[in-house]
Amino acid sequence: MKRIEQLQRNLRESNIQQVLISDTLSIYYLIQKRFHVQERFIALLVQQSGEPVLFLNHLFPSQPIPGVEMVRFHDSDDYLSLVLKYTSEGVMAVDKSLPARFLLPLMQGNCGIILSSFVEDMRLVKDEEERVKMRNASLVNDEIMGEVEKFLHVGVCDKEVEAFIAQEQAKRGLEPSFGSIVGFRKNAGDPHGCADGQILQESDVCIIDMGMVLEDYCADMTRTFVYNDPKLEEIYQIVLKANLAAEAIIKPGVRFCDIDAAARNVIEEAGYGQYFTHRTGHGIGLEVHEPKDVSSANTDVVQAGYCFSIEPGIYIEGLGGVRIEDLVIVTEDGCEVLNHYRK
Amino acid sequence: MKRIEQLQRNLRESNIQQVLISDTLSIYYLIQKRFHVQERFIALLVQQSGEPVLFLNHLFPSQPIPGVEMVRFHDSDDYLSLVLKYTSEGVMAVDKSLPARFLLPLMQGNCGIILSSFVEDMRLVKDEEERVKMRNASLVNDEIMGEVEKFLHVGVCDKEVEAFIAQEQAKRGLEPSFGSIVGFRKNAGDPHGCADGQILQESDVCIIDMGMVLEDYCADMTRTFVYNDPKLEEIYQIVLKANLAAEAIIKPGVRFCDIDAAARNVIEEAGYGQYFTHRTGHGIGLEVHEPKDVSSANTDVVQAGYCFSIEPGIYIEGLGGVRIEDLVIVTEDGCEVLNHYRK
Repeated sequence: MKRIEQLQRNLRESNIQQVLISDTLSIYYLIQKRFHVQERFIALLVQQSGEPVLFLNHLFPSQPIPGVEMVRFHDSDDYLSLVLKYTSEGVMAVDKSLPARFLLPLMQGNCGIILSSFVEDMRLVKDEEERVKMRNASLVNDEIMGEVEKFLHVGVCDKEVEAFIAQEQAKRGLEPSFGSIVGFRKNAGDPHGCADGQILQESDVCIIDMGMVLEDYCADMTRTFVYNDPKLEEIYQIVLKANLAAEAIIKPGVRFCDIDAAARNVIEEAGYGQYFTHRTGHGIGLEVHEPKDVSSANTDVVQAGYCFSIEPGIYIEGLGGVRIEDLVIVTEDGCEVLNHYRK
Repeated sequence: MKRIEQLQRNLRESNIQQVLISDTLSIYYLIQKRFHVQERFIALLVQQSGEPVLFLNHLFPSQPIPGVEMVRFHDSDDYLSLVLKYTSEGVMAVDKSLPARFLLPLMQGNCGIILSSFVEDMRLVKDEEERVKMRNASLVNDEIMGEVEKFLHVGVCDKEVEAFIAQEQAKRGLEPSFGSIVGFRKNAGDPHGCADGQILQESDVCIIDMGMVLEDYCADMTRTFVYNDPKLEEIYQIVLKANLAAEAIIKPGVRFCDIDAAARNVIEEAGYGQYFTHRTGHGIGLEVHEPKDVSSANTDVVQAGYCFSIEPGIYIEGLGGVRIEDLVIVTEDGCEVLNHYRK
């Protein structure tokens, strides 16, 4: 329970009495148990000291969890009042995903509810065990990308490629971390484009953006394959340079907006600034999209252990597009790029 | 925009100035446009009169929507303050899924925020167009059940059956409405059991609980197949009787708890009460689980147009289990059972 202890230290330092965590991945992060409760209430109450309390519907079976007090309830119980009975005087932090149907009744019983990101902040910094899992997940994603590149051929339908990716993931017993994106020519030129029955031509481009979950941690990478198209080959080199420029400056203390700028400047200087329409990257871990954004608006600095994507792109309607995405983990003096598939 | 007009009438009658809707399916229900924004903010602000206002991130492309004012924003904009600028004096209702990260900042600007279920309540009553879609979805689900029953044979692995269902859904271009449940012997005896590599035996039982989405509306049904097991055949007849008993009493004005009791009494009288461990059913529509529960705790009465499941079950650890589930729509004087697959 070293993460619980860390959280309790953080609570004491912030002078916050308690935090109520409803996000099931954050609960998993803290106590290594994963529950799938759909629309039902679940929460872990962590106070400055003592055992955390898990509120769990009787519908979901669970063995006792060492170091965790379990409070079971039925659908028909007034479980929010039950939660309030376990809280102490003083402020209670809640996590950002707690829905209004639980939050508003809780607020009627506890006036000192604030929004906090205690666990999200902890999840930002991957510990050694998590780094190993992130690394392993990306290695498998690299391996699948190799199979996908071999599978690509003139005449193949984008939907077939999408199904091939699903199959390669399923063959390894893995779930996708998000719906794969396969974009040929026109769909590659649309950052929201997705497979809709296009056939790969002699001269074409193919964006593959895919990932799977391995041991609960998400992979996410993009490679773009250009076939016999000098203009897109030129654009490819620009995006590659942007990707490498961003990765080159990452180290603890650098601001996210400066990493974004490192990629964006390359693309702007080449005259394609208007075609790079999204942020440079996003945090990743137990979820495929986690805080924090690598964007021009984010002036936070990166710290060792942060893991995020670097994915600059250029999209030109009609012509096609290029995106190159790696995951990186910030190290003590730079960053480790988790994807080794050639780019 | 007849649903918007209905909602505005409901607001005026309740003397609530406005409602902020963040649930993308409720937004779809009201304005027939579906957005996939993941973790990002989206909301439709509906006031007692005037055009509704849709707040939509620039990342998500959209054509103008007739009758809807669109307010676009960037990730870096203070979009919650923007929303507050569009609100009027007076109470603002929010829907139950609005997460704390949006709700708490909004509450700092508008003290009169309450939880309401305006749109959920409207969604409870399926109109004629929705009834047709619910009916059609269940017809396809029946058809797939036929293929699944033919596919079942001694020696088949539960995982193969699961994959077969996915394939039958995909063949029709349809997405599952939830992860299919395939439970042989031991997993049929566990209401949370799922496929884990069991092989179907000469004497066995197989629970199939599955559904897909057709034209945005969800199907959900369960059939149980008993092979050469007199004890389970006996249990099957009890569950079937419970299923039919519940369906027989459904009509406008009957309480959900009485429908639950109609099924539960049959099972209790047969001496299996302790093995029927869940509610009798749940609402369904655009989502596979919607309000309201068919449970002993729910004293609400059903109305014409309500659509929900009737799914009693008996689960005995080790021996196996039986569940029989249909969807029903409440009619003027009874109910229409949407599943016609034999039981």
